[in-house]
Amino acid sequence: MLGNILHWFEAQPFSKVAGIITALQVIIYASYYFAVSKVKPKVINEVMFFTDQGAGCQEHNENKGRCYNEGCAYSNIRRICEYIESSRSTLDVCIYLITCHDLANSILRVHRRGVSVRVIADCDMAEGSGSQVAVFRRFGIPVRMKKSPYLMHHKFFVVDHWILLTGSFNWTMQAITGNWDNVIVTSRRDIVEPFDNHFAALWDEFTATG
Amino acid sequence: MLGNILHWFEAQPFSKVAGIITALQVIIYASYYFAVSKVKPKVINEVMFFTDQGAGCQEHNENKGRCYNEGCAYSNIRRICEYIESSRSTLDVCIYLITCHDLANSILRVHRRGVSVRVIADCDMAEGSGSQVAVFRRFGIPVRMKKSPYLMHHKFFVVDHWILLTGSFNWTMQAITGNWDNVIVTSRRDIVEPFDNHFAALWDEFTATG
Repeated sequence: MLGNILHWFEAQPFSKVAGIITALQVIIYASYYFAVSKVKPKVINEVMFFTDQGAGCQEHNENKGRCYNEGCAYSNIRRICEYIESSRSTLDVCIYLITCHDLANSILRVHRRGVSVRVIADCDMAEGSGSQVAVFRRFGIPVRMKKSPYLMHHKFFVVDHWILLTGSFNWTMQAITGNWDNVIVTSRRDIVEPFDNHFAALWDEFTATG
Repeated sequence: MLGNILHWFEAQPFSKVAGIITALQVIIYASYYFAVSKVKPKVINEVMFFTDQGAGCQEHNENKGRCYNEGCAYSNIRRICEYIESSRSTLDVCIYLITCHDLANSILRVHRRGVSVRVIADCDMAEGSGSQVAVFRRFGIPVRMKKSPYLMHHKFFVVDHWILLTGSFNWTMQAITGNWDNVIVTSRRDIVEPFDNHFAALWDEFTATG
């Protein structure tokens, strides 16, 4: 069989042989490309900014309309909620301060769906005015902290050990409606993995009572 | 000339033709690979963490020795200074609060070297106790801010419009010696570029007097 094919090829002119070889290579490369792009999950790299122009967008938020203001705090919050709610199996939250109801409600919804949610919080801020940490506990989400004069100053979460969201942005109403802040979302392994390991180490170190 | 080459190829057996085509392709791919890897700058993705264990490392910092504590605040600060001092043409700093002398001195050294340094600072924090913003101004570094009830809460810099360093970490002595904090360094275009554009927009919006 292979002998026949080689014999047939030998009888053809050079241009035909070269053409067939090139066509076969294109088919192999294309099949490989489509196979890989199907298997590989989408790579995420996204940046959001909060500015002092965010507060002016409150009205459109109530109408849930689309916003064309690039620094729109409400569009950013909706986007962060989408990332929280994209969790399928785990959601690890490490947060200095959470008073924003939209974000807290997203976390509670994910927990109700059966996703394994874990929260690390700052010991003093957890008991501060408007903090949602007590609400998390009431609904059965495990929360850990550490009694310390130092601040648990992180503001990140990791979805399914795969997507990291982090930045300067505190999850408060003040940060939403005026501060200049940033949030980075990434699925880059060499950035997500250290955060994932750091969360695991803090989770082991911290306790339920702080 | 081309006719002669084609004629020579036609006279050869199929196996020889296929071998020569494949060899030529390998040579072309290899040349392309080495050419690209020479032109393309090194990709940077790095994560640093600060923990409550940082303070214990003060002694080794004074000896400038190597530290094996992963959360060592002083090793992190040295690393951040290295990134600041790697600036060749521009250094854009957007910072809530800077009281750490090591970081401030690195910025001053870069400025003295002739690098174009620009600083955006929080209006109230710039005049706070220990703030290095007045020192920057005294040495001729342009500083801009905006009078506002809101916080300029970013903590990032961009080196040569190419490397971004950002995180939850404030450039203070307290953050260095105890808080749990993170810093991400990246040269990913789709993350660095939005920060670069954001800095340019704030620079245009803000003024020298706030």
